Formats: sequence, C-alpha cells, structure tokens
Amino acid sequence: MPKNLIAIYPGSFDPITFGHLDIIERSCQMVEMLTVAVLKNPNKTPLFTVQERIAQITAATKHIHNLKVDSFTGLTVEYAQQQGAKILIRGLRAVSDFEMELQMAHTNKTLNHTIETIFLATSNEHSFLSSSVVKAIAEFGGQVDHLVPAEIAEALRSRLSPQN
Amino acid sequence: MPKNLIAIYPGSFDPITFGHLDIIERSCQMVEMLTVAVLKNPNKTPLFTVQERIAQITAATKHIHNLKVDSFTGLTVEYAQQQGAKILIRGLRAVSDFEMELQMAHTNKTLNHTIETIFLATSNEHSFLSSSVVKAIAEFGGQVDHLVPAEIAEALRSRLSPQN
Amino acid sequence: MPKNLIAIYPGSFDPITFGHLDIIERSCQMVEMLTVAVLKNPNKTPLFTVQERIAQITAATKHIHNLKVDSFTGLTVEYAQQQGAKILIRGLRAVSDFEMELQMAHTNKTLNHTIETIFLATSNEHSFLSSSVVKAIAEFGGQVDHLVPAEIAEALRSRLSPQN
Amino acid sequence: MPKNLIAIYPGSFDPITFGHLDIIERSCQMVEMLTVAVLKNPNKTPLFTVQERIAQITAATKHIHNLKVDSFTGLTVEYAQQQGAKILIRGLRAVSDFEMELQMAHTNKTLNHTIETIFLATSNEHSFLSSSVVKAIAEFGGQVDHLVPAEIAEALRSRLSPQN
Amino acid sequence: MPKNLIAIYPGSFDPITFGHLDIIERSCQMVEMLTVAVLKNPNKTPLFTVQERIAQITAATKHIHNLKVDSFTGLTVEYAQQQGAKILIRGLRAVSDFEMELQMAHTNKTLNHTIETIFLATSNEHSFLSSSVVKAIAEFGGQVDHLVPAEIAEALRSRLSPQN
Amino acid sequence: MPKNLIAIYPGSFDPITFGHLDIIERSCQMVEMLTVAVLKNPNKTPLFTVQERIAQITAATKHIHNLKVDSFTGLTVEYAQQQGAKILIRGLRAVSDFEMELQMAHTNKTLNHTIETIFLATSNEHSFLSSSVVKAIAEFGGQVDHLVPAEIAEALRSRLSPQN
Repeated sequence: MPKNLIAIYPGSFDPITFGHLDIIERSCQMVEMLTVAVLKNPNKTPLFTVQERIAQITAATKHIHNLKVDSFTGLTVEYAQQQGAKILIRGLRAVSDFEMELQMAHTNKTLNHTIETIFLATSNEHSFLSSSVVKAIAEFGGQVDHLVPAEIAEALRSRLSPQN
Repeated sequence: MPKNLIAIYPGSFDPITFGHLDIIERSCQMVEMLTVAVLKNPNKTPLFTVQERIAQITAATKHIHNLKVDSFTGLTVEYAQQQGAKILIRGLRAVSDFEMELQMAHTNKTLNHTIETIFLATSNEHSFLSSSVVKAIAEFGGQVDHLVPAEIAEALRSRLSPQN
Repeated sequence: MPKNLIAIYPGSFDPITFGHLDIIERSCQMVEMLTVAVLKNPNKTPLFTVQERIAQITAATKHIHNLKVDSFTGLTVEYAQQQGAKILIRGLRAVSDFEMELQMAHTNKTLNHTIETIFLATSNEHSFLSSSVVKAIAEFGGQVDHLVPAEIAEALRSRLSPQN
Repeated sequence: MPKNLIAIYPGSFDPITFGHLDIIERSCQMVEMLTVAVLKNPNKTPLFTVQERIAQITAATKHIHNLKVDSFTGLTVEYAQQQGAKILIRGLRAVSDFEMELQMAHTNKTLNHTIETIFLATSNEHSFLSSSVVKAIAEFGGQVDHLVPAEIAEALRSRLSPQN
Repeated sequence: MPKNLIAIYPGSFDPITFGHLDIIERSCQMVEMLTVAVLKNPNKTPLFTVQERIAQITAATKHIHNLKVDSFTGLTVEYAQQQGAKILIRGLRAVSDFEMELQMAHTNKTLNHTIETIFLATSNEHSFLSSSVVKAIAEFGGQVDHLVPAEIAEALRSRLSPQN
Repeated sequence: MPKNLIAIYPGSFDPITFGHLDIIERSCQMVEMLTVAVLKNPNKTPLFTVQERIAQITAATKHIHNLKVDSFTGLTVEYAQQQGAKILIRGLRAVSDFEMELQMAHTNKTLNHTIETIFLATSNEHSFLSSSVVKAIAEFGGQVDHLVPAEIAEALRSRLSPQN
C-alpha cells in the first residue's frame, strides 16, 4: 500500500441507508480517500436519479473529509482502474449477500487481478437493512426514520407514500 | 488511516497453506505492515509447535518485506491493541466460515470497537483448502505438495504418514 | 399471553398449498384464533384475485374452527395491531427462506416491537413446496394434485395449462 | 391451545446469556407458563453444574412470574410430555443454527408428533452471542459484562480467568 | 443401470459457458449418451434463440462423441421420459444454487419417481461463473474470452457491447 | 460410460440408516456395481466395529444384487483407484453437508482427477437423518425403529440404552 490507499465503495444507493453510512465511516478510518461511486445501471429503474442519489450521499457524509461522491457506468474494475484505486469495499450482511458478493469479487478478479475487494461485516444493528426494505416500508406508509437520514426519509415519504 | 496502516493476520496456521499465503500476499499489497500472528491456544493440541509454525511462516514469506511473524495468547483484539494495529485480516472461504468469522468479528467489535476486521475472499483455486484438510490427507499418505510449501509437505510426511 | 393468544398468518397464498395448510393446522393447535391474511400487493400481478384466494383458503380450512380468512394491504405489523394480534406466524423451509424471513421479522420488530414473529419448520414432506413451484408445474401441464387441494389443482389446470 | 399454553425452553445454558434472556422474556409474553429446562448431558463436561445453572437462571429471571426453572435428562420430547407441555421454544441465530435446529425439530416430530417446536429470531443485538463465545472470551481474560448478567460475569472471571 | 445409461443435462444455456462445458465433459465420461437439452421457457426473453443456442452448444462440443443437443418445452421429467433417459444431471456451484437445485430435484421426484437427478460440483475454476454474469460483463464492454468459447464471446460482443 | 460403471459409496455407516439405504438403492439403479465401503478411521471411536458395520450393511442390502460391502483405510481416491472405480457417490442433506461434501469432492479431485464424485439429494423423508442423531436418540432411550433397520435398532438398544 506504499503511499496512498485509495478505495471505491460502489453501489446503487437507491437510497443510501444507515447501513451504508456505517460501512462508509468505518472505511474512511482505514483508507486515504474513499470514493462512494453510484452505479448508473441502464437495466434498472431507480427510485431516485443518479443526481439525487449523489446529492443525498453528499449531504449524509459532509462530516467526513477523506471522501468523494461520484457516479459511473460500465464495469466497476474499469472505473476503479481509471480512478487509480486498487481496492473495492463491500459490506456483508447475510448468507445470500455473501454468495453474490463472492461471485462479484471473483469475477472482478478475473477481469483485473490488480484490484482487490475487501469486505466489512455490516454492524449488527443494521444487519437486516437494505435499500429495498426501506422502500418497501415507505411504500406502505411505514416509518423509516430509524433506517435512513431524515432528508431521505422525507423524500421517500413524498415520493412513495400510498396517499400519493 | 492517516499515516500507517498496520494489520494483524491472526490464526492457528497449523500448518500454513497456499490459501493462507495467498491472503498474506494480497494483504501486503494493501497495508504498510502485516503481522502474521500465531495464536497459542491452550485448549488445542497442535501438530506443530508455535516455534515450528513461526519458522514455517517465516520461510514461506521471506520474499515479502512488509511482514512480521509473531505469536500471541489471549484475546486477538488485545494483542492488536498492544501492537498498535487497527485492522484484523481474515480470509473467507465458504458459508460455514462466513458465519463463524462474522461471529468473531462482531464479538471483537463489542470488545474493542476501534479495531476493524476486513475480509478477503479466498482465491477460487484455494477455496476448499484448510490446514485440517491438509493434515487429513497427509495422515493417510496422500500428496500435499500442491497445497502447502515443499518444506511443510516434507514435515507433514515425516510426522504424519501412516508408515510411521 | 394472559388470556387470548391471537395470531396472524400473513402471505400471498397465490395459491394456498398443502405446505401452507400444514402450518395453519399446526398453528391452530397453539393459538386461540388464527387469521390467515392475504396480502394485496399492488406491485405484483397474482394468478388468482384476492377474492379467489380468500375463497380457496376458506374452502380448504372449513374443518378448522378457530380460524378466520381476511385480506389486508400495507404493513403487516399495522394490520396485526389493528386486529389486536400480537403474533405473526411464518413457515420456514430452506436457507434462503430463513434469511428473508429473518430480515422481515427484524424489520417488523423495528416498526412495532410489541409484535412477535414465530416460525414453524415446514414439515419434511412439504419442505420444497411453494406456490411458485406449483404454478410452474401447472403451467407446463404437470400434475399438482399432490401439492394443493383438489379445487385449486382444477383451477390451476383451467387457467394455466398450455393447451389454453 | 384452548386453555393453557405451556412451553419448554430447553438448553444447556452453560451459562445463560443475554441472548437466552431475550428469548425467555419474549416467550413469557406469549405463553401461560414457560419452563426453562437445563439439559443434563452425560456426554459433555459443563463449566457450571446443573445446580449452579439453575441458580443462575433463577436469579436472572426473578422479575418474570410465569416461569419455572427445571432440569432434565433424556429426550426433550419425553420431558415435555411428562410436563404436559405441547411447545418447545428455540432461538434462531445464524444459518448453522438453523440447520441443526431444523434437524432437531424434525427429529422430535418423528418421536412425538403432538409436540411442536416454535422458533424466535434472536434479536439483532445478540445475534452472534453464544455460551461458548462468552466462555472463550472469559478464558482469555476479556470483559463479558455486556453479554451475561453481572453475577455470571463474576462467576466466569473467578472460574476461568487465565491468572487462575 | 443395466445396459445403457442415458442422461439429460437440461438448462437455458443462454449462452453456454466453460462451467457448463466442464460439467458436460465430465458427464460424458460417465454415461453412454448425454443429451444437452435447451429449455424453451415461454416466460423468459433469452439473449440467444433456441436455434442459436443449439448451434453454439453443438460447435462447442464437437469433440465429444456420446452427446446430442436438443431442445424441449414443458416439464423436464416428461421430456426425459420421452427420451428414455433415467438421469438428469445438474452442476452445483454455491449455496443458493444448492437450495434451488434441491427444490427442483425433489419436485421432479414427486412428478416421476423413476427419474433420478445427480449433481456434479462445478470445478473450482468456474465456481462463480454463470450465463448471467457473462452477459452482465459483456453488456458493460468487458472481456469474456476466459469464460465462454471464442465464437460465443464474439457473438456477445456484437450483440451486447455498449457501443451498439 | 463405455463398459462398466463401477462406483464406491464411502462412509462411516456407524450405523447405516434408512437415509443411507435410500441412497444405496437409488445408486444401484444407475451403476453396474456399487461398493459400500466402510472407512476405518483410526482417529474416531466408533460405536460398532468395522466387522459389525459390514455385517449390518450386508444384512440390510441382501435384496440388492449389484452391490458389495467392503472396508478400507487411507484415502478414498486411492481405494477407488485400486478397485477400478471411477465414481464416488455421496448423499446431500443440508447446507452444512453441502459445504463439507464440496470440500471433499474438490480435494479428491486435486488428488486424482480421474475420479468423479456424484451427489444424490437425500429423500425428503430422511433429509434430517444421520447416524449421530440415531445414536443420540437411542442413548436417551428413544425409539429409532423408524430410522434404522430392525436389527440395528435392537443393537442400539442393547448397547446404548440408559438402563445399561
């Protein structure tokens, strides 16, 4: 790691949750610079646009200094290569995560063996939290303030609540 | 990670395998200094003494410069704290690993929340390799030269092979 | 549980299978009153309407006396709260079930900690049975009479069989 | 469940942890009477005697009124039968738990099909806690006060700490 | 197995990968005749037509003599029955595979108990490879030549690459 | 499978259960000759001697004609090689089985790549049955007649029941 340990935390972040933020904060303790990179996936219809998600992440992480927010399309390893990053960071929650994450890490290794994926265990408190769960609760009018930052809870309410 | 990223790779290493060496080599690309730390577990009867294991690891890693080999007893997080290391590194192979590793990582977090565990996925080639498997094969007189360094294969043969 | 143990068995039941019926019968041995509650999920296109599913469940459970059939939309915990039920019942089949069920149970706990989810292990005989499997078999013209009640097998045949 | 829902929570409880206590408290909300039943397993060497474990559990649950503490040897379903209990309660933590617990539940069902096993998901906070982990930490001199009641933490220290 | 052991290897093969080919080659060492059978699934939109997939598989297996390539619709067990095959072959990669594969095998057993499913473990090298992964990489313009035969890599490039 | 498909079903069989017998019967439908091979493991203390286990298996399989019972020590792949067998057969029950079985299959592949392991899914009815479970029940005086052949149930009773 000689001089500068630059890492990418790629994901959809549609929207960012307290689980993601926990991974981000712990990662920023370890690396010189972390780029939270929002994947533009042409095959999925997100709830929030890439621009909205970048703004949400930027707001939620403004207390962290060694962090950038960016977006990308295409292969994660190519994006990492372009950014001069040698490390991808991923959170691990449950067994099904583990399988899919391992598949991605191994596949990425075959595409670019110089880029390493490291995994952090999601904290117990957030171990069953995902963006999908948050959206499902908000869609049925439930509270999500304990799962996402206040602005995002508000955005979810105005966009998803059933009375709309 | 401001200036120096020091990490511990704790384990029994009884004996060290090519799977462990893969994790060590990849970790040393990421951290300033890695300590491979052999756990003296008073409840287990190892095949090789701590001294033998330290010698084996030292021999197998002599091409790596940012690496120390050490041993410890007691809690891993206390050893890490004493060494000024903030990071524990663990390899992940299969689902049962994953469960136990997550349990250890979460337990260590409750004991010292400043120390972080990061996981690397064992390479495909070594994803079913463990010290126990190596010993079981050697015990029945099988070849283990593709699983451990040559000196260790020899040591296993002289200590475990059935004709002894 | 002072006086009356009222429980909800929520699900899609599209259609109800012998696996669901096994969970229902065993649950009704334990609770005062069980409500089998069909979730109206606006995001899914079911094979049978909510009304059809209520009729199917009612017919299949007419031998059970401490049971009601109902439907609901929105959050399961809010529906349970309105019904005065403190218990949600879920069947557990396989590992992937287990993960998703645990996620739902933990999420529901964060939404209303007074409502408890209890799990019953699906009987061995039905441990690989699901509504989706039943529909997939019927769609290809296969027999499903050993998997669902006769009326539902007939309904599946008339609605799904390939010659239609 | 017509009138009296009596349940057994069987286990080794060597020693009881906050994870067990969480399951006990939640179970006592649901059942008329819960018996926490310490298994005397002739094949294992426990750290605490059955008498010590009964005393520990009794002390830790003295705020709960619909609870008894007992011990038993032999098959759990036979003990339940003798006690007039129709329900066994078990906590579920991780995937490996899930497998073994399912095996026990199915086996018990083949031995006595009138006795039902219900599972509660261990709370997130305690999802990686076990008696073995507690003993391993105490053995290496670590703090366990956040994992078990104070008296048990003290008992573990005096019996297990390395300076002894 | 009295005289002729005929087996079916059913799947989508959209497209065939080196992982599938490894299973095919190993299976053909064990059986008299293997039929690689492409499932026409009316509910899915494949990337390659059934005819294209048959041509791809035929080209990739032209060095194997006890092999036929075919397609079918409907239930796999009925197709096997018509072909006089008593054995279905499936590859096993990871835990999530395992669950779904077991569900299919058990379901098929209830539909025709004379047809047996046997599983081969995917080789380590290909243990994280799937048709979906290959398509996802190709879609983002990544190299897939190490994952599929050259003609298929070329076909994927011309059909999926982002500049199209 | 040119001429003769000879397979080995290796295991401890301490004692053989109805789950093993199901795998044996289904395997014998597929192969020319099956050898049920009892592993003499010097590191384990079995309940029944190798001779007793061979006698038990022979008695339980006397209705099957293409079957031999044998014992071996050492590596399974070497025993298979000596017997001219190219196939090892293993039953798969649950996820933890799956992991360990995959590890063994991959390890055996590295030791002798000409020998193939094929897996059969344990039938639903026996999916939670193991020799250890049978012994644990018998040890506590429970019925095991539904889990093992009558002679073995009797042998377990006389050797393990608590009144002895």
